Amino acid sequence: MTLQGKMLIGQQAVQGSRDAIYAINPANNERLEPAYLGGSQEEVERACELAWRSFDSYRETQLETRAQFLETIADEIEALGETLINRAVAESGLPQARIQGEKGRTCNQLRLFAKTLRNGEWLDVRIDPAMPNRHPMPRADLRQRHIALGPVAVFGASNFPLAFSVAGGDTASALAAGCPVVVKAHSAHPGTSELVGRAIQTAVKRCDLPEGVFSLIFGSGREVGQALVAHPYIKAAGFTGSRSGGLALWKTAQSRPEPIPFYAEMSSVNPVFPLPAALESRGASMGAEFISSLNMGAGQFCTNPGLVIAVKSKGLDAFIAAARQAVESSSAQTMLTPGIHQAYTHGVQAFTSTGKVHEVARGQKGTGPNQCQTALFVTSAAHFLAEQTLQEEVFGALSLIVECQDQNEVQRVAEALEGQLTATLQLEDADQEVARNLLPILERKAGRLLVNGWPTGVEVCDAMVHGGPFPATSDSRTTSVGTAAIFRFLRPICYQDLPDALLPEALQHSNPLSLKRLVNGERED
Amino acid sequence: MTLQGKMLIGQQAVQGSRDAIYAINPANNERLEPAYLGGSQEEVERACELAWRSFDSYRETQLETRAQFLETIADEIEALGETLINRAVAESGLPQARIQGEKGRTCNQLRLFAKTLRNGEWLDVRIDPAMPNRHPMPRADLRQRHIALGPVAVFGASNFPLAFSVAGGDTASALAAGCPVVVKAHSAHPGTSELVGRAIQTAVKRCDLPEGVFSLIFGSGREVGQALVAHPYIKAAGFTGSRSGGLALWKTAQSRPEPIPFYAEMSSVNPVFPLPAALESRGASMGAEFISSLNMGAGQFCTNPGLVIAVKSKGLDAFIAAARQAVESSSAQTMLTPGIHQAYTHGVQAFTSTGKVHEVARGQKGTGPNQCQTALFVTSAAHFLAEQTLQEEVFGALSLIVECQDQNEVQRVAEALEGQLTATLQLEDADQEVARNLLPILERKAGRLLVNGWPTGVEVCDAMVHGGPFPATSDSRTTSVGTAAIFRFLRPICYQDLPDALLPEALQHSNPLSLKRLVNGERED
Repeated sequence: MTLQGKMLIGQQAVQGSRDAIYAINPANNERLEPAYLGGSQEEVERACELAWRSFDSYRETQLETRAQFLETIADEIEALGETLINRAVAESGLPQARIQGEKGRTCNQLRLFAKTLRNGEWLDVRIDPAMPNRHPMPRADLRQRHIALGPVAVFGASNFPLAFSVAGGDTASALAAGCPVVVKAHSAHPGTSELVGRAIQTAVKRCDLPEGVFSLIFGSGREVGQALVAHPYIKAAGFTGSRSGGLALWKTAQSRPEPIPFYAEMSSVNPVFPLPAALESRGASMGAEFISSLNMGAGQFCTNPGLVIAVKSKGLDAFIAAARQAVESSSAQTMLTPGIHQAYTHGVQAFTSTGKVHEVARGQKGTGPNQCQTALFVTSAAHFLAEQTLQEEVFGALSLIVECQDQNEVQRVAEALEGQLTATLQLEDADQEVARNLLPILERKAGRLLVNGWPTGVEVCDAMVHGGPFPATSDSRTTSVGTAAIFRFLRPICYQDLPDALLPEALQHSNPLSLKRLVNGERED
Repeated sequence: MTLQGKMLIGQQAVQGSRDAIYAINPANNERLEPAYLGGSQEEVERACELAWRSFDSYRETQLETRAQFLETIADEIEALGETLINRAVAESGLPQARIQGEKGRTCNQLRLFAKTLRNGEWLDVRIDPAMPNRHPMPRADLRQRHIALGPVAVFGASNFPLAFSVAGGDTASALAAGCPVVVKAHSAHPGTSELVGRAIQTAVKRCDLPEGVFSLIFGSGREVGQALVAHPYIKAAGFTGSRSGGLALWKTAQSRPEPIPFYAEMSSVNPVFPLPAALESRGASMGAEFISSLNMGAGQFCTNPGLVIAVKSKGLDAFIAAARQAVESSSAQTMLTPGIHQAYTHGVQAFTSTGKVHEVARGQKGTGPNQCQTALFVTSAAHFLAEQTLQEEVFGALSLIVECQDQNEVQRVAEALEGQLTATLQLEDADQEVARNLLPILERKAGRLLVNGWPTGVEVCDAMVHGGPFPATSDSRTTSVGTAAIFRFLRPICYQDLPDALLPEALQHSNPLSLKRLVNGERED
C-alpha cells in the first residue's frame, strides 16, 4: 500500500493546503516521505458537516451492525501487515516487538468494545412502568436509555501510535457509543495515521455505513485542533498528551457558546510507596524492578513511575543501590521525536537546577540522535514539599526518590501530591497497618491503586480505570481505557408514555434486545 | 421550634456578620422575622474544613448506615409538622397543599436514595480476576468500584423550597454517594432552610456521624456562593436556578486551579409539539390542558411549557381559542419573591417589545402584590427563527405559540432550538410518521421526551432524567432528579492485586455485600 500523504474526509482522500508535515525517523533524524500537507478550517468544516449528517443514522444502527464495524476495523488493521509495523517503527523509534504488541492491543480493544456493544449493559436501561391507579397522582410510564452525545474529536497521542491514536481507545469507545469521529492525526506519525485511517475508511464502506462516520485531518500547529474543538457540530473530544496542550484545548471546549466535555489525559508521576517491611525483605530486588518499569518505552508511558516515596532505612539504601546499578547499566533508547527528546533533556536540566535534588545515577549515553539517558534523583521530603516543580512530570525515563524521616512524613508527602493516574504500594503482610493508613489518601489522589506491581501496563478490560483527579485528567469521573470508557460519549434520556412503536428497541415492552433491564428497581434476569 | 436566625456549621449554630437577610411574604410584602445575618469567607472556611475532615470516614460508612441516615433526615423533616409547612407557605407564597405535597416528595426522595444505597448497583462493581497463566502476559487482578468525589456545595433553589433546596435532590444524592454537603441557603426562604437544616443536623447527631457531614450557610450577594465553589476542599457542586447565576458559578468552578464538576440546571422552555391529527381531533381540550400545565405554581417550574410549535390549521385555531379562554379565566397567582415578579413583568415587556409577537391573552390581574398574570403570545415561525431572544425563558406563566406553514417548518424550528429539559409530542396514531421524523431531532435537544402528557411534574424514580443539553443544564451526561443523580458525585477507581484484607467490602472475594457484580464480563446472579 502506497502512502498518499492525504487527509481522509469521509470516503475522499483530500490534499491539504498548509505547511507540509514530514515524519522524522527519530533513530537517525531522517525525513520520511511523503509530505502531509496540513488541513485548514475548510477541511474541519467538511469533516464536521459530514459527521453531523451521519450522526442520526449512525447512532441508531443496530448494536450488531456497530459491533461488526469495530471488528471489521480490527480485521482491516491486521490486513495491513508488515507495512503498518514497519512504518510505525520508523516513525516512532519504538522496537518492532513493542509495535507488534501494540497492534494486538489495538485490535483486541476494538473487539472488546464489539462484545460490550452486543451485551448492551452500557445502555443502562431503567424502566418504571405506569401506575395509573396510584394515589394521589398516577405515575407515567418512564423509560431511560443512554444515547450518543454527537460527533467526537479525537487527538492522536505520540506515545502509542496505534493504541492511543487513530483507532485507539478514544475512537473505539466513541464509535461504539454511536458517535462519528473526526481524528486530528499526531504529526509525529502521519504515515501510521494514514494507514490506520484508511483501514477505518475501508471498514466504513464494507459495513455500508454513512461516510461521515470517520474522517482524518492533519495539521501542524494549533489551527486544526482548535477549530475542531470549537466546531458547533463536535459534541465531545478525547485527548492524550501534555498538560499544556490538554489545558489549551480544554479551555477552548469550555469557552464555546455550548461547552462540551473534553476528556484530556495529561500528566501523572505515578507515585510508588515501598513500605518498611517490603524494603527490609526485598529492597534490592524492588530497586531493580522499579528501573525496569521506569525504562519501558524510554519512560514515555503515562503510567511511568516518576516518584518513589519511602522512609529512610537500610532497606531503602539497598533499594537505591540496586536502582543505581540498574540505571547505570540501562542502555540508551531512542525517544519518539526530536521535540520530545529536547523537552526531556531540558526537563532533566530544569529538575537539577532547583538545587534540591541529588543525582543518583544516569543511564548509558546513546550514540545516535534523540537518545534517552535514564535519570534517577533523590531528595528529602522537606525539599520535595517546599518545591512544587518537583511534582511536574518530565516525559521520559526520569524518576525521583523522596526520602522521609518517618511514616508521618510519608503521609504528608502523599497528601501534598496532585491527582495521579496510579499510586502503588509495595508491601509485605507486616505493612498492612501502614497501608491501611495510606490507602484513604491514595484513593483521593489516583484512579488506580496497585499492590506489589508496577504501574506501567494498562490492561484493557471492564474493571480498568485509566483516569484520575486533575491534573492527571480533566475529568476524574471517567476512564480512557477499558470498556467503561464508552460512558464518556453518552448521556441519559428518558421517554415518558411513548407508544411502543415509537420507542427505541432497547426500551420496547417485549425487550427485543434481551437486555437485563432495571424494572421497578429490580434487575431483570 | 423557634427560629434562631443562625447558620449551622457542623453541630454549631453560628451568627453571621454580614447584611441581614429577611424572608418576605410575597403575598403581602411583609418582612418575616428573624433576621439571618449573612456568612462570610470565615464560615465557608470552617464548614469546608469540617466537611473535609469528615470525608474519609463518611464516604466509607456502611451502606446501611448511610441509608438509615437519609431515612432519619426524612423522619426529622416530618417531625417538623405544621411549623415547616406554615413557614414555607409564608416564605414562598405557594399554596399549603403544594407545600404539603412537596414535603412528601422530599421525604420520599430521601427514602428512595436509602433504597438505592442498600441495593448497591450504583457502585458499578466490575471484577476481572487475575489470569496468572495468560500468554504472552499474565493479567493482574483488577477490581473497580465507584467512590465519592469529595465535599459537595449545594445551592438551594427558590422555586421548590423543600424538594430542590436544603434537603432536596442534590443534597440527598450527594449524601447517598458519600459526600459531605455544605448548603448555601436560598435567601428567599431562610426560615424553611433553617428548619430543614436543623432536621439534618439532628439526624447527623442521632446517627453518630462526623459533624462535618452537613453545614448550612446564609449570604446575600455572591460572596458566599463564589467562595464556596472556589474552595479547594469542595469537589463538586449542584445548582438549580437562573442561567446567569448558574453560568457565573460554573465559570468559577472551571477557573479553579483544580476545576470541578458544576451541575447547573438552568433554563428551558420545554417545547410542546401538537401534531396535525391530534390538533384535529382534540385541539380545544389540548389548549385547555396546556394552560393548566402552564399555570402550575404560577409557571415557576423548570419544566413549564413555554413554547408550542405547530402547523397552522383549524385544529390549531381551536387549540388557541381554548387556550385564550383558559388564560383569560386564569386567576392571578402570587409569585415566589418580589424579585422574581419584577423579572417576570420585565420579561413580558421585553418579549412584546421585539415587535414580533402578538398577545393572545392575559390572565386576570391580581389584587395583592407580586401577582403573576398569565401571558400567552403567538408568532410566526419566520419571526421565531429570526429572533433568538424569543427562545429565552421568562420565569413564570408565559408561553409562546409558534405557527408554522408546514411540517418542514416545524422541523426547522425544532432544529433551531437550544437544549431543553423536556420536549413533548401530542399525537394520534395518524401522527406517528410525523413523530418519527421529529423524534431524532428532539432526542438531540432534550433530556426527557413525552407523548400526550405535559412536562410539568417530574417523577422521582430510577428512569427519570431531569437534565438535558446546554443551556438546560451545564452537563447533559447527568440528571438532577431520580436515583441516577447519585452518579454526579462519584468517580470510578480500580484496585490492582490488592490483598483481600485491604480491599473495600464491595470488592472482596466473598462478596459480603451480596452485590450483583460484573465478573469477567458476566453479571453475577
